[in-house]
Amino acid sequence: MSGCEFESLEDCLESHLPQAELSEVKRILFGKETLKLDLPVCAVDAASKRDFELKGYRFEAALEQLRPPRRIRVGLIQHRIVLSTDAPILDQINAMHSRIGEMVEVAAMCGVNIICFQETWTMPFAFCTREKEPWTEFAESAEEGNTTRFCQELAKKYNMVVVSPILEREELHDTLWNTAVVISNSGNVLGKSRKHHIPRVGDFNESTYYMEGDTGHTVFQTQFGKIAVNICYGRHHPLNWFMYSMNGAEIIFNPSATVGALSEPMWPIEARNAAIANHCFTCAINRVGTENFKSEFTSGDGKKAHHDFGHFYGSSYVAAPDGSRTPGLSRTRDGLLVVEMDLNLNRQISDKWSFKMTGRYAEYAEELTNAVRYDFKPNIVKE
Amino acid sequence: MSGCEFESLEDCLESHLPQAELSEVKRILFGKETLKLDLPVCAVDAASKRDFELKGYRFEAALEQLRPPRRIRVGLIQHRIVLSTDAPILDQINAMHSRIGEMVEVAAMCGVNIICFQETWTMPFAFCTREKEPWTEFAESAEEGNTTRFCQELAKKYNMVVVSPILEREELHDTLWNTAVVISNSGNVLGKSRKHHIPRVGDFNESTYYMEGDTGHTVFQTQFGKIAVNICYGRHHPLNWFMYSMNGAEIIFNPSATVGALSEPMWPIEARNAAIANHCFTCAINRVGTENFKSEFTSGDGKKAHHDFGHFYGSSYVAAPDGSRTPGLSRTRDGLLVVEMDLNLNRQISDKWSFKMTGRYAEYAEELTNAVRYDFKPNIVKE
Repeated sequence: MSGCEFESLEDCLESHLPQAELSEVKRILFGKETLKLDLPVCAVDAASKRDFELKGYRFEAALEQLRPPRRIRVGLIQHRIVLSTDAPILDQINAMHSRIGEMVEVAAMCGVNIICFQETWTMPFAFCTREKEPWTEFAESAEEGNTTRFCQELAKKYNMVVVSPILEREELHDTLWNTAVVISNSGNVLGKSRKHHIPRVGDFNESTYYMEGDTGHTVFQTQFGKIAVNICYGRHHPLNWFMYSMNGAEIIFNPSATVGALSEPMWPIEARNAAIANHCFTCAINRVGTENFKSEFTSGDGKKAHHDFGHFYGSSYVAAPDGSRTPGLSRTRDGLLVVEMDLNLNRQISDKWSFKMTGRYAEYAEELTNAVRYDFKPNIVKE
Repeated sequence: MSGCEFESLEDCLESHLPQAELSEVKRILFGKETLKLDLPVCAVDAASKRDFELKGYRFEAALEQLRPPRRIRVGLIQHRIVLSTDAPILDQINAMHSRIGEMVEVAAMCGVNIICFQETWTMPFAFCTREKEPWTEFAESAEEGNTTRFCQELAKKYNMVVVSPILEREELHDTLWNTAVVISNSGNVLGKSRKHHIPRVGDFNESTYYMEGDTGHTVFQTQFGKIAVNICYGRHHPLNWFMYSMNGAEIIFNPSATVGALSEPMWPIEARNAAIANHCFTCAINRVGTENFKSEFTSGDGKKAHHDFGHFYGSSYVAAPDGSRTPGLSRTRDGLLVVEMDLNLNRQISDKWSFKMTGRYAEYAEELTNAVRYDFKPNIVKE
């Protein structure tokens, strides 16, 4: 059984473990059980017909006396590319729009309020090739590109906040960015969040295409809650999650593109740790499938040139501030994860654990300011 | 099956999953397989006679041309209290010394170079009671107390660095601290590291007994590597792990005392995330068993007064910078985990993932300095 055939960790546990052990295993691995969310029959049928996985879960919070519940529904979409990577670019983009359109329609049937797509969702993740052409042609204006217009239509039609991570071309200077466009449910572009940390690892030195983002740790106040977007490699940096949280994020999305051999054992750890440490919800989204490129490329690992860089393992999930999480979506199929969450949980967990109050942040600000100097003297005791 | 009867997550998976699925499940959950370490027969026999679990694993690194391997062995000890909590204090301490002495002897047979005990290992974790007496009598001088002398003897006898977390009494001012004493293999006290973050959660407002530590993020240069100690609740704070790493720590110990209902699903996440994020090894240690106290106490949760605060679930483990980890020790038994690690792995993983180089720390220092001001204006975009 190889990495790309194994469908789901959770399904495997469910089908082999005896009931009593299963519940203990799930408690230790995933925390307080995430309840299933009843989804409308029309949505279930449509997902089945359109050949994608649809799963729904909900995180509850305690009832409070002074605040009503703040229950909202978030949708995470993971998908493979639709056409082959050598199809005409506009065809590839249009096919992806069409696929996402039919998945978002199902999200709307499920009452989703905020939806987020995977990293650079309109294109193959071609940055392994190190070719500029034709991949830079996928880049679009964040404010006025076709993809943003497409998402604005979805947002208005379904009264849904849309987080659309694309390859951005800033046309004034012809600079490229890896950018999430945040579109309000009114259809207006609320703003954008550029990938804050750029990987130079394995097949990806993405600074061939775009540099570190300059949008800081912006949080977007939407009708359904305060959200932020921490793109892909930024999930390895705890300070990054932390700073979105310090700016007030209640939900942090992590649209990603990552493959099994590189990162799979880290995938369930990092976004979940961020939800725990920052008293917020985190949503980790990864694409699925294997993408083949016409030109071969090498990986700087002494191995032969090849045409794909491995299997994107999907497994998108949502983690809650109480340490619990949903099961992951499939490792192999397109999927929509619908999660209802009561945002009151964030404050309740903060009041319980108080990490922000016990964090001694003023001291860390000083220590870090000191530590980043080139002549920093580390605090090392010797005999 | 209740929380204190379930022996081990890993054993449960091993005994129920078919081989092909098992290897995928383990890969996704635990990363690259940790190899078993062959331990001497005399050690295995002694552990069996002395009724504690003994497990050994090793993390390998690639061979380099210019640096020899830096293979060292670390020992983690988890244990229950030996006498009941109402036995005379000196008897309780002596019984614990005796128990640890026989476990450390086995560690020595296994070639352990650095050993770490659990948080406040000489005493029951009595801070739930909110009684000052008799528990403050367990406090000892870090430099000259009986427990430190006992550990100095162990260190010299076995040529072993000993990390001994105790309740410290600073006699000059009669202040108490939750402190790890670090003793060199020469027998000298190298220094101490005080618990940096103090919990006010559930049964524990530990600031009843001791306040936030003032030893900063000290790293100890030992013959076997640079180590640091992040005590218990500090594991919830990513900045805390980070700052030990910024000061050069290659191995960070996390001696803890935590119970199932409160934290168990967070336990496998936090220390492991810290190993990944900081390119270092982390060692998480938790005590085992249920401790009963004569006086009843309440937990501020509306429930009845009670005499224990739940089951300490052990499950001590070591996590590596490549995202892999050892299985945990038992949830119910005393245990010694012996782990051989090649410290060259830290730099190898850093060279692969480069989190320290892509971390943008100078910008975070500024952002954090700004964010801790009472009049901080968060970066929130509204429509």
